[in-house]
Amino acid sequence: MDPTTKINIPESTRERIVIIGGGFGGLQLARKLTRKDLYQVVLIDKNNYHQFQPLFYQVAMAGLEPSSIVFPFRKLFQGKKNIFIRVTEVTSIDPIKKTLQTPLGFCNYDHVIIATGADTNFFGNENIAKYALPMKSVSEALYLRNNILDDYEDALTTPDYDPRQELVDIVIVGGGPTGVELAGSLAEMKKHILPKDYPELNIEEEVDIYLVQSGGELLKGFSAESSEKALKYLEDMGVKVLLNSRVTDFDGNLVHFNDGRSIPTQKVIWAAGIKGMPVDGLPETSVTYGNRLAVDRFGRVKDTENIYAVGDVAYMEEPNWPKGHPQVAQVAMQMGSNLARNFTNRIKGKEEVLFTYNDKGSMATVGRARAVVDVPKPKFQFGGFFAWLLWLLVHLFAILGTRNKVFVFINWVVNYINYNQSLRLIIKPKIKEL
Amino acid sequence: MDPTTKINIPESTRERIVIIGGGFGGLQLARKLTRKDLYQVVLIDKNNYHQFQPLFYQVAMAGLEPSSIVFPFRKLFQGKKNIFIRVTEVTSIDPIKKTLQTPLGFCNYDHVIIATGADTNFFGNENIAKYALPMKSVSEALYLRNNILDDYEDALTTPDYDPRQELVDIVIVGGGPTGVELAGSLAEMKKHILPKDYPELNIEEEVDIYLVQSGGELLKGFSAESSEKALKYLEDMGVKVLLNSRVTDFDGNLVHFNDGRSIPTQKVIWAAGIKGMPVDGLPETSVTYGNRLAVDRFGRVKDTENIYAVGDVAYMEEPNWPKGHPQVAQVAMQMGSNLARNFTNRIKGKEEVLFTYNDKGSMATVGRARAVVDVPKPKFQFGGFFAWLLWLLVHLFAILGTRNKVFVFINWVVNYINYNQSLRLIIKPKIKEL
Repeated sequence: MDPTTKINIPESTRERIVIIGGGFGGLQLARKLTRKDLYQVVLIDKNNYHQFQPLFYQVAMAGLEPSSIVFPFRKLFQGKKNIFIRVTEVTSIDPIKKTLQTPLGFCNYDHVIIATGADTNFFGNENIAKYALPMKSVSEALYLRNNILDDYEDALTTPDYDPRQELVDIVIVGGGPTGVELAGSLAEMKKHILPKDYPELNIEEEVDIYLVQSGGELLKGFSAESSEKALKYLEDMGVKVLLNSRVTDFDGNLVHFNDGRSIPTQKVIWAAGIKGMPVDGLPETSVTYGNRLAVDRFGRVKDTENIYAVGDVAYMEEPNWPKGHPQVAQVAMQMGSNLARNFTNRIKGKEEVLFTYNDKGSMATVGRARAVVDVPKPKFQFGGFFAWLLWLLVHLFAILGTRNKVFVFINWVVNYINYNQSLRLIIKPKIKEL
Repeated sequence: MDPTTKINIPESTRERIVIIGGGFGGLQLARKLTRKDLYQVVLIDKNNYHQFQPLFYQVAMAGLEPSSIVFPFRKLFQGKKNIFIRVTEVTSIDPIKKTLQTPLGFCNYDHVIIATGADTNFFGNENIAKYALPMKSVSEALYLRNNILDDYEDALTTPDYDPRQELVDIVIVGGGPTGVELAGSLAEMKKHILPKDYPELNIEEEVDIYLVQSGGELLKGFSAESSEKALKYLEDMGVKVLLNSRVTDFDGNLVHFNDGRSIPTQKVIWAAGIKGMPVDGLPETSVTYGNRLAVDRFGRVKDTENIYAVGDVAYMEEPNWPKGHPQVAQVAMQMGSNLARNFTNRIKGKEEVLFTYNDKGSMATVGRARAVVDVPKPKFQFGGFFAWLLWLLVHLFAILGTRNKVFVFINWVVNYINYNQSLRLIIKPKIKEL
């Protein structure tokens, strides 16, 4: 591949819309745009599949297979003639020439949508970035799974108490939905699975799961009732929740806290923050809070032309959301839909529509029959078994593909009945050194 | 881990049997031995799961997930108190001291069973070993899958015909069941899936699948009828079968044949032969044809004491099999069972039993409704839809775990109905560089 040549995409009489990233926002946009043959759509993603982020933690905990929560783009767009999928990365954008650079070559655009999402934010701490485990892709979730299982295997042949503690204890940093869900499912794994798999280890006494939250409450942004319920659930399940605590450093064996305490562990899972991943080449003035791209209510990136952003990488203020929207799938999908409608309106000579977020509520699951749901209108909150059932249903229906839905459903049912998945596999594709 | 110390396994008053390798033979032995509490069993395997080799090719062809055809050892042996599983490699054996060396430390044994199986045989050709793709583990199958999909993605951005040919053509070497099954499912992928996933490529005209066989017939060891049927099936499906051809070299871009011909391709799948993988430290006189360990009818390795071998790594002659048994799962499982029985007999003061292979027949599948079955007693052969159905049933029942059976079954049914799996995913666990 020669990056100085033009990437091989057929020329078209239609305007070309390039979408960078096939997450919730980019994919929604692409699906709506390809229903009508008004534009040529180019979808660029690092992977050949869409990832269902809300269930990454179940992949990490060996509860689901990666293939059950991802879906190949090519299969999704089979039969659509106006979309061209390229599996590569956009390294920079040239807003003057209206081109994107990729390792496969450059690509010109008429309109480009930055839907690159967000990545883990280590807040500049290089040690933590080096040693802690992030979970922002299915690959990272799989790596985390392999890591946890490898360490329990190693613990078996580590007769001394102290080095064994480093292997079996797990520290999760970040009390948002991801951290809470991870801590909950690790607690269930500790209770139901590890004692059966590792009868040689004293799981009950030796394994500790810590959840570290810088603020005074879990699930920031949820109702106070939900935060308190989540805390109670986790503590009932044996998770050691450290509120008002911050991790200041981690050297791979010892994690340090702001109050001077430290915990010996080799595994720190970092779910403490995210930052936008805008593309290089945009004006500095386009980037705002959280490394996100400032966009107007039409999704247009500030100080640019024909460049849009949707989803986690976009920062949009609207009257009800003066500090921007939460970085969740719902916002991304609605932004994608709105932008698709506006592109259609544009061709049809209709007026473009301002984006308005329709908040359907928030939910987080902690464990079996333990979840919390906040509904905004009418405002109410509930938890427990029905919240958990609702969480399962909502996520099951949101997963792409019938086969995936069926497989996830069977996995959940089997897991509910026998508490005992069979996915604790350390599978790594063999790499051939050339 | 300190390899000079003793590996952490509790001492026992019972004799210790160490099984190296949890393939069909080793696993069968371990399962039978752990039913009775007569010995302490130690199972050592590189992976934490058993692999179902006969379906590797479906993993490579994105028809099944790795997790559907492997099963974690720990789950299999949950509740058994007399087995200790260690995920590591045996680097050497010391028959005098009766110890095994592993990276985790050394391990003493009273009896050791070498069930290490066989690996790809490149017949000493270093270029082929370096560039060709083997398929003797689920990791290698997954790597092969990623490789095939990556190359089709690359073909899209390769406008010139010749370099594109290297990416899309596939050469399979070896006309045994693995090669035949791979060629057949590649032909189906070419017909049903690739044109839908890659409408930009001219799949029908540009993609060629070659199957290379050194002898004059496919499926050596099967009946002449089966060999001929398999050839006819493959040719009907558009596979270019090259009989009486041998690959002499492969440089990563061009594969050379003994008749001077060559084919440009980057993908040569090597299924042309296997060789035993005995453990270092055994007497040279123990090793015989195909790098296998010569064993007597009790499985005892020649010129050793308390060392046994089962499965593909074992070479045993019996009156009906003067040149040894075929290296297949049936033989390995029966050897494992017989050895388990003899260990039990030994403790109970009963006489040990000679191994006799009960040949239940051979089968190979080529594609949808196309398979061949040879039954030895009464001797007959059949092919077509019923052979294919029988192949599916036999393999479905042989897979470990109810959940796996269900998932494989659903995948097969979905695939049968819509010809269109959704597993074409290039998923690689993210490796963190430390």
